[in-house]
Amino acid sequence: MIYLTRIEHFNAAHKLFNPEWDKEKNEMIFGKCANENWHGHNYELQVTIKGEVNEGTGFLFDVKQLSLLIKEYVLEEIDHKNLNLEVDFLKGKMCSTENLAIGIWNRLKMYLPSEVILHKIKLYETPRIFVEYFGEIK
Amino acid sequence: MIYLTRIEHFNAAHKLFNPEWDKEKNEMIFGKCANENWHGHNYELQVTIKGEVNEGTGFLFDVKQLSLLIKEYVLEEIDHKNLNLEVDFLKGKMCSTENLAIGIWNRLKMYLPSEVILHKIKLYETPRIFVEYFGEIK
Amino acid sequence: MIYLTRIEHFNAAHKLFNPEWDKEKNEMIFGKCANENWHGHNYELQVTIKGEVNEGTGFLFDVKQLSLLIKEYVLEEIDHKNLNLEVDFLKGKMCSTENLAIGIWNRLKMYLPSEVILHKIKLYETPRIFVEYFGEIK
Amino acid sequence: MIYLTRIEHFNAAHKLFNPEWDKEKNEMIFGKCANENWHGHNYELQVTIKGEVNEGTGFLFDVKQLSLLIKEYVLEEIDHKNLNLEVDFLKGKMCSTENLAIGIWNRLKMYLPSEVILHKIKLYETPRIFVEYFGEIK
Amino acid sequence: MIYLTRIEHFNAAHKLFNPEWDKEKNEMIFGKCANENWHGHNYELQVTIKGEVNEGTGFLFDVKQLSLLIKEYVLEEIDHKNLNLEVDFLKGKMCSTENLAIGIWNRLKMYLPSEVILHKIKLYETPRIFVEYFGEIK
Amino acid sequence: MIYLTRIEHFNAAHKLFNPEWDKEKNEMIFGKCANENWHGHNYELQVTIKGEVNEGTGFLFDVKQLSLLIKEYVLEEIDHKNLNLEVDFLKGKMCSTENLAIGIWNRLKMYLPSEVILHKIKLYETPRIFVEYFGEIK
Repeated sequence: MIYLTRIEHFNAAHKLFNPEWDKEKNEMIFGKCANENWHGHNYELQVTIKGEVNEGTGFLFDVKQLSLLIKEYVLEEIDHKNLNLEVDFLKGKMCSTENLAIGIWNRLKMYLPSEVILHKIKLYETPRIFVEYFGEIK
Repeated sequence: MIYLTRIEHFNAAHKLFNPEWDKEKNEMIFGKCANENWHGHNYELQVTIKGEVNEGTGFLFDVKQLSLLIKEYVLEEIDHKNLNLEVDFLKGKMCSTENLAIGIWNRLKMYLPSEVILHKIKLYETPRIFVEYFGEIK
Repeated sequence: MIYLTRIEHFNAAHKLFNPEWDKEKNEMIFGKCANENWHGHNYELQVTIKGEVNEGTGFLFDVKQLSLLIKEYVLEEIDHKNLNLEVDFLKGKMCSTENLAIGIWNRLKMYLPSEVILHKIKLYETPRIFVEYFGEIK
Repeated sequence: MIYLTRIEHFNAAHKLFNPEWDKEKNEMIFGKCANENWHGHNYELQVTIKGEVNEGTGFLFDVKQLSLLIKEYVLEEIDHKNLNLEVDFLKGKMCSTENLAIGIWNRLKMYLPSEVILHKIKLYETPRIFVEYFGEIK
Repeated sequence: MIYLTRIEHFNAAHKLFNPEWDKEKNEMIFGKCANENWHGHNYELQVTIKGEVNEGTGFLFDVKQLSLLIKEYVLEEIDHKNLNLEVDFLKGKMCSTENLAIGIWNRLKMYLPSEVILHKIKLYETPRIFVEYFGEIK
Repeated sequence: MIYLTRIEHFNAAHKLFNPEWDKEKNEMIFGKCANENWHGHNYELQVTIKGEVNEGTGFLFDVKQLSLLIKEYVLEEIDHKNLNLEVDFLKGKMCSTENLAIGIWNRLKMYLPSEVILHKIKLYETPRIFVEYFGEIK
């Protein structure tokens, strides 16, 4: 078993705002992140897959293919987007780094070739904050 | 003459959109950055000042004071904000990294103590793009 | 289960010196790190907690609260301090990165709210050396 | 149980080329990496060991010794080398990051002192691609 | 006057070997870098241009265009290449970081649009070694 | 004219304490940095030299020689040392990053070969604070 990770970047706007709470409670809980006019981030996304090394290529999986799959099925949906308004897989959910990581996991899970085992999504919101998700049963 | 730099971070939402052009021209010129629903960045701000070393302190200037001044007069205005809608010193200007760096220079210039000579504003929009500004006559 | 990490920084002085050994043996074992006049480091501290996502906030735990707890109960004790002379939780122990990481784990364990599960302490002593600790039973 | 990691760097040339395939198939599979005139990388190598803390030293293991062992038994073989032509432990294998990480694991395993338990080899080929290997049974 | 920098990456193989000297002298001068079987690097390239801000776009120059120009006229020539054997603008020259930076400057100078003033080429060979070039008359 | 930079690292203990002032004034001016029991840093040192490229080597100057000179004449004096107590070139001066950068400049100036022109000392005290010095007449 070996683990291969590809790192990608994207930018997006969001706000942390629970529509079931009034503005005051949102500001108490989320502080500046509740700003109704949005703020945004340069996210760093690390996608880790695992499996056996193919003898012919020496690869677990072609990392350029992995990069293309991430771009087509994930970054296309979220890069330079408003996470609250424009991202289908976050509809009805809080736009936290936690939910974004879980959403990316679920999306990649659907579109990765069956021989690729998704192991981890690691998502930096800022250089000092990151979230890791290994799927539901761990 | 010695140079001292303090690095700070902030997050903000923006879009690149010239209101004198129609949506089509904006998208042709600015691509994904023209998304009307905004996107955003983790900016890294480097403020460089210059001058002589004070013999009593060994400092050009107290870097903790410099950090507080940047926070009070710059970050307070732009951190977790929408640069197009909420920042006075960008009103009527395109919200590019270039104009943001110039705006930060002009603001710090006003509020730094007279013994501090501002030398450079360096502003990263992403880990691969940055702008430097040394003031008007250089 | 999701994992959330907050990164903090602190500076401290220390020396590697076992008082039960003479100076010669200490220098043989610890080399330059045994310098009786101390040396020091910029440490990078990564605190990882784990748990379930709260539906109302989208958070595992508020990362700003986590940062404040680390500052109040850990950094207050060790930042800009002499690890050998001034840190209660290192008294009677060698001031290695290993023991510092274990000490930080034990301290945070005491003060984190009961709903937060501490998962890992990762501590960089230099950009090329780090230690990870997951608690006693692993 | 505690984990200690030492980070080292090396440079090498390689190509991805399977001699059992013709040039066309190699270029189809490996793209620019199949260039017969070689290309190369600055690799970053992270070696993680695990075990108990020694009470006398406060160390899991002396990290300077670990660095010397990595240099003597691994970097000496691969730094500033051609991975396809000059590295015994890669003979007959594709020179992928996966196989290089496994080869480094096997070599260190042989030469580390018996009290040191090797836990992980993490190998960056570029700042955006890395592989992790934990040994055969995991 | 404002300065805009775009950062790109490429990989290449090279050796430091002066064909007018014998192998012994080359090894004495260049050490491991003279290895006749090549070694290689992940280079980081920073291209800085300067000029005035355009009022309509807020840009000195469109950084995505700058990136495309660097890719088309520079990276296309050197990425995943053997610098000694395959790069026209290095023919007859030693493949040092210094000469590579000068060669990149000369090439970009030829192909950048006339309204763009090239200011600096900064080229990292390793994370601890870089060269800067500002053109011939400075 | 071309510029070549070598990056090195060292660790040291220091305190900011002016012996002509009482403890109270030192703490008012220097805050936690005045702690009489010392604190410390991982410093990053960047040494930039300038000159013409040698045609035979392709080098401005052999960067490995530059590294050895920095180690022999600078790091030997300050690495794993107490800057206040053990560094001759800081005697009688405040141990600020500013004075440390100037001291390193003066020392390297003395020991660099005459064909090497020292251009800049850049010294990071923490990842967010650095000082640059270009010599006395600039």
